[in-house]
Amino acid sequence: MKMALIEAHKAMETDEVPVGAVIVHEGKIIASAHNQVKSPHNPTGHAEILAIKEACQKLKTTHLMDCDLYVTLEPCPMCAHAISLAKIRTLSFGAYDPKGGGVDHGPKIFDHSTCHHRPEIFGGIEEKACAALLQDFFQKKR
Amino acid sequence: MKMALIEAHKAMETDEVPVGAVIVHEGKIIASAHNQVKSPHNPTGHAEILAIKEACQKLKTTHLMDCDLYVTLEPCPMCAHAISLAKIRTLSFGAYDPKGGGVDHGPKIFDHSTCHHRPEIFGGIEEKACAALLQDFFQKKR
Repeated sequence: MKMALIEAHKAMETDEVPVGAVIVHEGKIIASAHNQVKSPHNPTGHAEILAIKEACQKLKTTHLMDCDLYVTLEPCPMCAHAISLAKIRTLSFGAYDPKGGGVDHGPKIFDHSTCHHRPEIFGGIEEKACAALLQDFFQKKR
Repeated sequence: MKMALIEAHKAMETDEVPVGAVIVHEGKIIASAHNQVKSPHNPTGHAEILAIKEACQKLKTTHLMDCDLYVTLEPCPMCAHAISLAKIRTLSFGAYDPKGGGVDHGPKIFDHSTCHHRPEIFGGIEEKACAALLQDFFQKKR
């Protein structure tokens, strides 16, 4: 999660919402990404989506059954379903997101019978540091 | 929707699930895409995601408020939330998808108070042709 936080800081530097994600495979980080929405004009450019794409390209697969994803914020519904499609083994996230999250909030993506893969989920990892970064970002925006 | 069906046929030719999408802005198609998951090793390579990226890059924006999306299959939860993030004006889809859809089925992405943009939705457009293409594809797979 510390590496995901470093990625989140990179997002902050380019005025993107500071969310970072890394994917680990066999003890090694094989993909790391931060939100890249504004400058590339891509509303789907969330850290998780970008990290999943990178990991899949690296392993030449569409399924990441042996991979673990760490992300600083509870994934939104788009990213949560992408995690399901990619069959990621475990999902660890930092801050909870009552307004935009899709795991423990809103549509609770993994709680439906039509969700064909549910990772093992660990919420609130390094929660304070992950949340503080986001609060800092949005406070500066006001 | 006829143009989206032509895109879906292209997916079929490369052994991808035959789903196609187009985005219309001011009466013109500005983006068209079909599922591209297998060969680029990208589990997020659904027609809608690819079309949204293309349209945003073309208009140099992350918001498609004046755009209408046509897709041959009810969007999955990932794509439905991407449509919400992109603030697309209207969503027209062909076949309903009780097993994997995220609009009228499963997590019903647009029905939550945490969903900040809900497009106008028209389901079942050219439903028979869209569904027949998918049935044909999956029958050949058996």
